Amino acid sequence: MTTQAALTREQGAEFGPLYASVQQFYAHQMQLLDLQEAERWADTFTEDATFDVPTLAEPVRGRPGLIAASRAAAARLAEAGERHRHFMGMFDVAQGPDGALQVRSYTTVYASVIGGESRVHRVCVCEDVLVREGGRLLVSMRRVTRDDLA
Amino acid sequence: MTTQAALTREQGAEFGPLYASVQQFYAHQMQLLDLQEAERWADTFTEDATFDVPTLAEPVRGRPGLIAASRAAAARLAEAGERHRHFMGMFDVAQGPDGALQVRSYTTVYASVIGGESRVHRVCVCEDVLVREGGRLLVSMRRVTRDDLA
Amino acid sequence: MTTQAALTREQGAEFGPLYASVQQFYAHQMQLLDLQEAERWADTFTEDATFDVPTLAEPVRGRPGLIAASRAAAARLAEAGERHRHFMGMFDVAQGPDGALQVRSYTTVYASVIGGESRVHRVCVCEDVLVREGGRLLVSMRRVTRDDLA
Repeated sequence: MTTQAALTREQGAEFGPLYASVQQFYAHQMQLLDLQEAERWADTFTEDATFDVPTLAEPVRGRPGLIAASRAAAARLAEAGERHRHFMGMFDVAQGPDGALQVRSYTTVYASVIGGESRVHRVCVCEDVLVREGGRLLVSMRRVTRDDLA
Repeated sequence: MTTQAALTREQGAEFGPLYASVQQFYAHQMQLLDLQEAERWADTFTEDATFDVPTLAEPVRGRPGLIAASRAAAARLAEAGERHRHFMGMFDVAQGPDGALQVRSYTTVYASVIGGESRVHRVCVCEDVLVREGGRLLVSMRRVTRDDLA
Repeated sequence: MTTQAALTREQGAEFGPLYASVQQFYAHQMQLLDLQEAERWADTFTEDATFDVPTLAEPVRGRPGLIAASRAAAARLAEAGERHRHFMGMFDVAQGPDGALQVRSYTTVYASVIGGESRVHRVCVCEDVLVREGGRLLVSMRRVTRDDLA
Protein backbone atom coordinates (compact mmCIF):
# COMPACT_ATOMS: atom_id res chain seq x y z
CA MET A 1 0.00 0.00 0.00
CA THR A 2 1.00 3.63 -0.32
CA THR A 3 0.69 5.76 2.79
CA GLN A 4 -2.72 6.83 3.84
CA ALA A 5 -3.22 9.96 1.81
CA ALA A 6 -7.01 9.89 1.82
CA LEU A 7 -7.33 9.61 5.59
CA THR A 8 -7.54 12.34 8.20
CA ARG A 9 -4.46 13.31 10.17
CA GLU A 10 -3.60 15.61 13.04
CA GLN A 11 -6.84 17.01 14.38
CA GLY A 12 -5.49 19.99 16.34
CA ALA A 13 -5.34 19.80 20.12
CA GLU A 14 -6.76 16.27 20.28
CA PHE A 15 -3.84 14.86 18.35
CA GLY A 16 -1.31 15.07 21.21
CA PRO A 17 -3.17 12.79 23.65
CA LEU A 18 -4.20 10.46 20.81
CA TYR A 19 -0.66 10.03 19.53
CA ALA A 20 0.68 9.46 23.05
CA SER A 21 -2.00 6.84 23.71
CA VAL A 22 -1.08 5.00 20.54
CA GLN A 23 2.62 4.96 21.43
CA GLN A 24 1.91 3.84 25.00
CA PHE A 25 -0.40 1.12 23.69
CA TYR A 26 2.28 -0.34 21.43
CA ALA A 27 5.05 -0.10 24.04
CA HIS A 28 2.91 -2.03 26.52
CA GLN A 29 1.58 -4.53 23.98
CA MET A 30 4.99 -5.48 22.61
CA GLN A 31 6.57 -5.69 26.06
CA LEU A 32 3.85 -8.19 26.99
CA LEU A 33 4.75 -10.24 23.92
CA ASP A 34 8.47 -10.17 24.71
CA LEU A 35 7.74 -11.08 28.36
CA GLN A 36 5.81 -14.07 26.98
CA GLU A 37 2.64 -13.00 28.77
CA ALA A 38 0.56 -14.73 26.11
CA GLU A 39 -2.92 -14.15 27.59
CA ARG A 40 -2.35 -10.52 28.52
CA TRP A 41 -0.85 -9.92 25.08
CA ALA A 42 -3.81 -11.55 23.32
CA ASP A 43 -6.08 -9.37 25.43
CA THR A 44 -4.77 -6.29 23.56
CA PHE A 45 -6.58 -7.52 20.43
CA THR A 46 -10.34 -7.54 19.83
CA GLU A 47 -12.04 -10.90 20.26
CA ASP A 48 -12.34 -11.43 16.52
CA ALA A 49 -9.05 -9.76 15.52
CA THR A 50 -7.21 -10.97 12.44
CA PHE A 51 -3.44 -11.37 12.69
CA ASP A 52 -1.54 -11.88 9.47
CA VAL A 53 2.23 -12.23 9.91
CA PRO A 54 4.93 -13.93 7.81
CA THR A 55 5.89 -16.42 10.57
CA LEU A 56 2.42 -18.02 10.39
CA ALA A 57 1.39 -20.25 7.49
CA GLU A 58 -2.00 -18.54 7.44
CA PRO A 59 -3.69 -15.65 9.27
CA VAL A 60 -4.99 -16.25 12.80
CA ARG A 61 -8.41 -15.03 13.88
CA GLY A 62 -9.30 -14.54 17.57
CA ARG A 63 -7.50 -14.68 20.90
CA PRO A 64 -7.08 -18.46 21.32
CA GLY A 65 -5.12 -18.56 18.07
CA LEU A 66 -3.03 -15.57 19.18
CA ILE A 67 -2.20 -17.26 22.48
CA ALA A 68 -1.20 -20.47 20.70
CA ALA A 69 1.00 -18.58 18.22
CA SER A 70 2.70 -16.64 21.02
CA ARG A 71 3.37 -19.82 23.04
CA ALA A 72 4.78 -21.62 20.00
CA ALA A 73 7.15 -18.70 19.36
CA ALA A 74 8.25 -18.74 23.03
CA ALA A 75 8.95 -22.47 22.85
CA ARG A 76 11.09 -22.03 19.73
CA LEU A 77 13.11 -19.29 21.44
CA ALA A 78 13.67 -21.37 24.58
CA GLU A 79 14.92 -24.24 22.45
CA ALA A 80 17.27 -21.94 20.52
CA GLY A 81 18.59 -20.27 23.72
CA GLU A 82 17.67 -16.85 22.35
CA ARG A 83 15.73 -13.74 23.37
CA HIS A 84 13.74 -11.57 20.96
CA ARG A 85 12.83 -7.90 21.36
CA HIS A 86 10.26 -6.21 19.17
CA PHE A 87 11.26 -2.54 18.85
CA MET A 88 8.42 -0.57 17.22
CA GLY A 89 8.37 3.03 16.17
CA MET A 90 7.68 5.43 13.30
CA PHE A 91 3.91 5.43 13.91
CA ASP A 92 2.02 7.03 11.04
CA VAL A 93 -1.44 7.47 12.56
CA ALA A 94 -4.54 8.32 10.54
CA GLN A 95 -8.24 8.20 11.28
CA GLY A 96 -10.62 6.41 8.95
CA PRO A 97 -14.15 7.66 8.20
CA ASP A 98 -15.50 5.16 10.77
CA GLY A 99 -13.31 6.58 13.55
CA ALA A 100 -10.97 3.59 13.62
CA LEU A 101 -7.26 4.37 13.63
CA GLN A 102 -5.05 3.16 10.84
CA VAL A 103 -1.47 2.90 12.02
CA ARG A 104 1.45 2.06 9.76
CA SER A 105 4.72 1.58 11.65
CA TYR A 106 8.10 -0.13 11.61
CA THR A 107 9.26 -2.97 13.85
CA THR A 108 12.82 -4.18 14.22
CA VAL A 109 13.11 -7.61 15.83
CA TYR A 110 16.43 -8.13 17.61
CA ALA A 111 17.70 -11.58 18.54
CA SER A 112 20.24 -12.19 21.29
CA VAL A 113 21.95 -15.50 21.92
CA ILE A 114 22.11 -15.85 25.69
CA GLY A 115 25.85 -15.86 26.38
CA GLY A 116 26.52 -14.71 22.80
CA GLU A 117 25.86 -11.87 20.36
CA SER A 118 22.88 -9.63 19.60
CA ARG A 119 21.82 -9.00 16.02
CA VAL A 120 19.06 -7.66 13.79
CA HIS A 121 16.70 -10.56 13.15
CA ARG A 122 13.88 -9.00 11.10
CA VAL A 123 12.87 -5.61 9.76
CA CYS A 124 9.09 -5.38 9.40
CA VAL A 125 6.30 -3.00 8.44
CA CYS A 126 3.18 -3.30 10.61
CA GLU A 127 -0.22 -2.13 9.36
CA ASP A 128 -2.87 -2.11 12.08
CA VAL A 129 -6.45 -1.08 12.58
CA LEU A 130 -7.02 0.09 16.16
CA VAL A 131 -10.45 0.47 17.72
CA ARG A 132 -11.53 1.72 21.13
CA GLU A 133 -13.60 -0.62 23.32
CA GLY A 134 -14.56 0.45 26.85
CA GLY A 135 -11.99 3.23 26.66
CA ARG A 136 -9.12 0.89 25.73
CA LEU A 137 -7.33 0.73 22.40
CA LEU A 138 -7.32 -2.74 20.83
CA VAL A 139 -5.97 -4.13 17.56
CA SER A 140 -8.77 -5.39 15.33
CA MET A 141 -6.57 -6.16 12.34
CA ARG A 142 -2.80 -6.59 11.95
CA ARG A 143 -0.83 -7.23 8.83
CA VAL A 144 2.94 -7.52 9.02
CA THR A 145 5.35 -7.70 6.07
CA ARG A 146 9.06 -8.48 6.20
CA ASP A 147 11.67 -6.54 4.25
CA ASP A 148 13.67 -9.66 3.40
CA LEU A 149 10.72 -11.35 1.66
CA ALA A 150 9.81 -10.57 -1.95
CA MET B 1 27.44 20.60 17.63
CA THR B 2 26.64 20.18 21.29
CA THR B 3 22.99 19.83 22.24
CA GLN B 4 20.86 22.89 22.11
CA ALA B 5 21.41 24.35 25.55
CA ALA B 6 20.53 27.93 24.66
CA LEU B 7 17.18 27.11 23.11
CA THR B 8 13.76 26.88 24.67
CA ARG B 9 12.29 23.51 25.55
CA GLU B 10 9.03 22.14 26.87
CA GLN B 11 6.57 24.97 26.99
CA GLY B 12 4.00 23.50 29.37
CA ALA B 13 0.69 22.28 27.97
CA GLU B 14 1.59 23.17 24.38
CA PHE B 15 4.51 20.77 24.36
CA GLY B 16 2.41 17.59 24.13
CA PRO B 17 0.69 18.41 20.81
CA LEU B 18 3.91 19.90 19.42
CA TYR B 19 6.01 16.84 20.23
CA ALA B 20 3.35 14.50 18.81
CA SER B 21 3.18 16.55 15.58
CA VAL B 22 6.94 16.35 15.18
CA GLN B 23 6.96 12.56 15.64
CA GLN B 24 4.03 12.11 13.26
CA PHE B 25 5.77 14.35 10.72
CA TYR B 26 8.94 12.26 10.74
CA ALA B 27 7.10 8.92 10.66
CA HIS B 28 5.16 10.01 7.59
CA GLN B 29 8.10 11.70 5.89
CA MET B 30 10.44 8.73 6.22
CA GLN B 31 7.78 6.22 5.19
CA LEU B 32 7.31 8.25 1.99
CA LEU B 33 11.06 8.02 1.35
CA ASP B 34 11.13 4.26 1.97
CA LEU B 35 8.06 3.82 -0.26
CA GLN B 36 10.01 5.67 -2.95
CA GLU B 37 7.30 8.30 -3.27
CA ALA B 38 9.89 10.83 -4.43
CA GLU B 39 7.58 13.78 -5.14
CA ARG B 40 5.48 13.41 -2.00
CA TRP B 41 8.66 13.03 0.05
CA ALA B 42 10.22 16.15 -1.50
CA ASP B 43 6.98 17.99 -0.72
CA THR B 44 7.76 17.65 3.02
CA PHE B 45 10.65 20.10 2.57
CA THR B 46 10.37 23.85 1.94
CA GLU B 47 10.90 24.94 -1.65
CA ASP B 48 14.39 26.21 -0.93
CA ALA B 49 15.37 23.57 1.64
CA THR B 50 19.00 22.54 1.99
CA PHE B 51 19.76 18.85 2.34
CA ASP B 52 23.26 17.89 3.40
CA VAL B 53 23.83 14.14 3.74
CA PRO B 54 26.95 11.97 3.48
CA THR B 55 25.64 9.98 0.48
CA LEU B 56 25.66 13.12 -1.68
CA ALA B 57 28.89 14.64 -2.96
CA GLU B 58 27.53 18.10 -2.12
CA PRO B 59 24.41 19.54 -0.45
CA VAL B 60 21.20 19.70 -2.48
CA ARG B 61 19.00 22.81 -2.49
CA GLY B 62 15.32 22.65 -3.47
CA ARG B 63 12.78 19.99 -4.35
CA PRO B 64 13.95 19.02 -7.87
CA GLY B 65 17.34 18.05 -6.41
CA LEU B 66 15.64 16.10 -3.61
CA ILE B 67 13.52 14.18 -6.10
CA ALA B 68 16.56 13.35 -8.21
CA ALA B 69 18.54 12.19 -5.16
CA SER B 70 15.65 10.01 -3.97
CA ARG B 71 15.22 8.42 -7.42
CA ALA B 72 18.94 7.73 -7.73
CA ALA B 73 18.91 5.99 -4.32
CA ALA B 74 15.88 3.91 -5.36
CA ALA B 75 17.63 2.85 -8.57
CA ARG B 76 20.74 1.74 -6.65
CA LEU B 77 18.59 -0.33 -4.27
CA ALA B 78 16.71 -2.01 -7.12
CA GLU B 79 19.99 -2.93 -8.76
CA ALA B 80 21.34 -4.37 -5.48
CA GLY B 81 18.11 -6.31 -4.75
CA GLU B 82 17.82 -4.61 -1.35
CA ARG B 83 15.30 -2.69 0.71
CA HIS B 84 16.19 0.14 3.10
CA ARG B 85 14.21 1.34 6.12
CA HIS B 86 14.97 4.61 7.86
CA PHE B 87 14.06 4.19 11.53
CA MET B 88 14.14 7.59 13.27
CA GLY B 89 13.68 8.37 16.93
CA MET B 90 15.18 10.13 19.95
CA PHE B 91 13.81 13.53 18.91
CA ASP B 92 15.35 16.34 20.94
CA VAL B 93 13.08 19.25 20.07
CA ALA B 94 13.86 22.88 20.86
CA GLN B 95 12.43 26.16 19.70
CA GLY B 96 14.70 28.88 18.34
CA PRO B 97 14.12 32.60 18.97
CA ASP B 98 12.44 32.85 15.52
CA GLY B 99 9.90 30.14 16.36
CA ALA B 100 11.50 27.55 14.08
CA LEU B 101 12.02 24.11 15.60
CA GLN B 102 15.48 22.66 15.92
CA VAL B 103 15.30 18.89 16.06
CA ARG B 104 18.28 16.64 16.70
CA SER B 105 17.49 12.95 16.34
CA TYR B 106 18.93 9.54 15.52
CA THR B 107 18.27 7.45 12.41
CA THR B 108 19.19 3.82 11.95
CA VAL B 109 19.12 2.67 8.34
CA TYR B 110 18.44 -1.05 7.97
CA ALA B 111 19.22 -2.93 4.77
CA SER B 112 17.55 -6.21 3.82
CA VAL B 113 18.64 -8.41 0.96
CA ILE B 114 15.42 -9.68 -0.62
CA GLY B 115 15.63 -13.42 -0.06
CA GLY B 116 18.53 -12.92 2.38
CA GLU B 117 19.48 -11.26 5.66
CA SER B 118 18.65 -7.94 7.33
CA ARG B 119 21.39 -5.82 8.88
CA VAL B 120 22.27 -2.41 10.27
CA HIS B 121 23.44 -0.35 7.33
CA ARG B 122 24.07 3.11 8.82
CA VAL B 123 23.74 4.86 12.17
CA CYS B 124 23.15 8.58 11.69
CA VAL B 125 22.49 11.80 13.57
CA CYS B 126 19.97 14.11 11.89
CA GLU B 127 19.88 17.85 12.63
CA ASP B 128 16.87 19.60 11.15
CA VAL B 129 15.24 22.98 11.16
CA LEU B 130 11.45 22.64 10.88
CA VAL B 131 9.16 25.52 9.96
CA ARG B 132 5.39 25.73 9.70
CA GLU B 133 3.86 26.79 6.37
CA GLY B 134 0.08 26.85 5.93
CA GLY B 135 -0.26 24.78 9.11
CA ARG B 136 2.11 22.03 7.91
CA LEU B 137 5.55 21.25 9.29
CA LEU B 138 8.30 21.27 6.65
CA VAL B 139 12.05 20.74 6.79
CA SER B 140 13.92 23.89 5.76
CA MET B 141 17.39 22.54 6.56
CA ARG B 142 18.72 19.02 7.10
CA ARG B 143 22.22 17.96 8.01
CA VAL B 144 22.96 14.28 8.52
CA THR B 145 26.20 12.82 9.87
CA ARG B 146 27.18 9.15 9.92
CA ASP B 147 28.77 7.45 12.93
CA ASP B 148 31.18 5.42 10.80
CA LEU B 149 32.76 8.50 9.20
CA ALA B 150 35.49 10.50 10.93
CA MET C 1 9.75 -8.13 36.58
CA THR C 2 6.44 -8.41 34.78
CA THR C 3 4.99 -5.21 33.36
CA GLN C 4 3.46 -2.78 35.73
CA ALA C 5 -0.09 -4.09 35.98
CA ALA C 6 -0.85 -2.64 39.40
CA LEU C 7 0.12 0.89 38.50
CA THR C 8 -1.95 3.70 37.03
CA ARG C 9 -1.75 4.44 33.33
CA GLU C 10 -3.11 7.01 30.92
CA GLN C 11 -4.87 9.67 32.94
CA GLY C 12 -6.99 11.27 30.21
CA ALA C 13 -5.98 14.66 28.85
CA GLU C 14 -2.89 14.93 31.08
CA PHE C 15 -1.31 11.88 29.54
CA GLY C 16 -0.34 13.55 26.24
CA PRO C 17 1.94 16.22 27.73
CA LEU C 18 3.32 13.73 30.27
CA TYR C 19 4.23 11.14 27.66
CA ALA C 20 5.82 13.79 25.43
CA SER C 21 7.89 15.11 28.35
CA VAL C 22 9.14 11.63 29.13
CA GLN C 23 10.20 11.01 25.54
CA GLN C 24 11.87 14.42 25.28
CA PHE C 25 13.67 13.77 28.57
CA TYR C 26 15.14 10.50 27.33
CA ALA C 27 16.09 11.85 23.90
CA HIS C 28 18.00 14.70 25.51
CA GLN C 29 19.54 12.59 28.28
CA MET C 30 20.88 9.92 25.96
CA GLN C 31 22.18 12.44 23.44
CA LEU C 32 24.17 14.04 26.26
CA LEU C 33 25.66 10.63 27.08
CA ASP C 34 26.57 9.93 23.46
CA LEU C 35 28.05 13.43 23.14
CA GLN C 36 30.20 12.56 26.17
CA GLU C 37 28.87 15.54 28.09
CA ALA C 38 29.49 13.71 31.36
CA GLU C 39 28.50 16.46 33.82
CA ARG C 40 25.37 17.53 31.95
CA TRP C 41 24.38 13.88 31.60
CA ALA C 42 24.90 13.22 35.32
CA ASP C 43 22.78 16.29 36.04
CA THR C 44 19.73 14.45 34.62
CA PHE C 45 19.83 12.13 37.64
CA THR C 46 18.89 13.02 41.23
CA GLU C 47 21.81 13.68 43.56
CA ASP C 48 21.44 10.30 45.25
CA ALA C 49 20.36 8.32 42.17
CA THR C 50 21.24 4.64 41.91
CA PHE C 51 22.51 3.38 38.57
CA ASP C 52 22.70 -0.36 38.10
CA VAL C 53 23.95 -1.46 34.67
CA PRO C 54 25.71 -4.62 33.45
CA THR C 55 28.87 -2.77 32.36
CA LEU C 56 29.60 -1.79 35.98
CA ALA C 57 30.88 -4.31 38.52
CA GLU C 58 28.49 -2.83 41.09
CA PRO C 59 25.76 -0.16 41.16
CA VAL C 60 26.84 3.48 41.30
CA ARG C 61 25.16 5.95 43.66
CA GLY C 62 25.28 9.71 43.04
CA ARG C 63 26.53 12.06 40.35
CA PRO C 64 30.33 11.83 40.91
CA GLY C 65 30.13 8.08 40.27
CA LEU C 66 28.00 8.66 37.17
CA ILE C 67 30.51 11.14 35.79
CA ALA C 68 33.38 8.75 36.42
CA ALA C 69 31.52 5.86 34.75
CA SER C 70 30.67 8.00 31.73
CA ARG C 71 34.27 9.21 31.33
CA ALA C 72 35.64 5.67 31.62
CA ALA C 73 33.24 4.51 28.88
CA ALA C 74 34.30 7.43 26.65
CA ALA C 75 37.97 6.56 27.16
CA ARG C 76 37.37 2.93 26.17
CA LEU C 77 35.56 4.04 23.00
CA ALA C 78 38.34 6.44 22.02
CA GLU C 79 40.88 3.67 22.43
CA ALA C 80 38.79 1.28 20.33
CA GLY C 81 38.17 3.90 17.59
CA GLU C 82 34.40 3.42 17.91
CA ARG C 83 31.26 5.46 18.43
CA HIS C 84 28.24 4.29 20.40
CA ARG C 85 24.64 5.46 20.05
CA HIS C 86 21.98 4.65 22.62
CA PHE C 87 18.65 4.42 20.79
CA MET C 88 15.79 4.24 23.33
CA GLY C 89 12.13 3.74 22.70
CA MET C 90 9.07 1.68 23.60
CA PHE C 91 8.38 3.69 26.77
CA ASP C 92 5.82 1.98 28.99
CA VAL C 93 4.98 4.75 31.46
CA ALA C 94 3.05 4.21 34.67
CA GLN C 95 2.51 6.30 37.77
CA GLY C 96 3.18 4.85 41.21
CA PRO C 97 1.07 5.68 44.26
CA ASP C 98 3.70 8.26 45.32
CA GLY C 99 3.43 10.13 42.01
CA ALA C 100 6.82 8.94 40.75
CA LEU C 101 6.91 7.60 37.19
CA GLN C 102 7.93 4.05 36.51
CA VAL C 103 9.21 3.72 32.97
CA ARG C 104 10.15 0.44 31.36
CA SER C 105 11.73 0.84 27.92
CA TYR C 106 14.10 -0.69 25.39
CA THR C 107 17.54 0.55 24.40
CA THR C 108 19.55 -0.61 21.43
CA VAL C 109 23.21 0.33 21.59
CA TYR C 110 24.82 0.61 18.16
CA ALA C 111 28.58 0.56 17.69
CA SER C 112 30.32 2.02 14.65
CA VAL C 113 33.97 1.53 13.84
CA ILE C 114 35.18 4.88 12.51
CA GLY C 115 36.14 4.07 8.93
CA GLY C 116 34.40 0.69 9.21
CA GLU C 117 31.04 -0.95 9.82
CA SER C 118 28.09 -0.23 12.12
CA ARG C 119 26.49 -3.02 14.12
CA VAL C 120 24.12 -3.84 16.97
CA HIS C 121 26.23 -3.86 20.11
CA ARG C 122 23.70 -4.46 22.90
CA VAL C 123 19.94 -4.90 23.30
CA CYS C 124 18.82 -3.75 26.74
CA VAL C 125 15.74 -3.27 28.90
CA CYS C 126 15.81 -0.11 31.04
CA GLU C 127 13.69 0.21 34.18
CA ASP C 128 13.69 3.72 35.63
CA VAL C 129 12.03 5.68 38.37
CA LEU C 130 11.57 9.32 37.34
CA VAL C 131 10.80 12.10 39.77
CA ARG C 132 10.12 15.79 39.22
CA GLU C 133 12.36 18.32 41.00
CA GLY C 134 11.89 22.04 40.37
CA GLY C 135 9.77 21.21 37.32
CA ARG C 136 12.43 18.97 35.74
CA LEU C 137 12.24 15.22 35.30
CA LEU C 138 15.21 13.36 36.82
CA VAL C 139 16.12 9.68 37.11
CA SER C 140 16.23 8.56 40.74
CA MET C 141 16.78 4.88 40.00
CA ARG C 142 17.94 3.05 36.88
CA ARG C 143 18.31 -0.66 36.36
CA VAL C 144 19.43 -1.98 32.99
CA THR C 145 19.49 -5.61 31.89
CA ARG C 146 21.07 -7.02 28.75
CA ASP C 147 19.37 -9.57 26.51
CA ASP C 148 22.57 -11.51 25.90
CA LEU C 149 23.17 -12.17 29.60
CA ALA C 150 21.45 -15.03 31.43
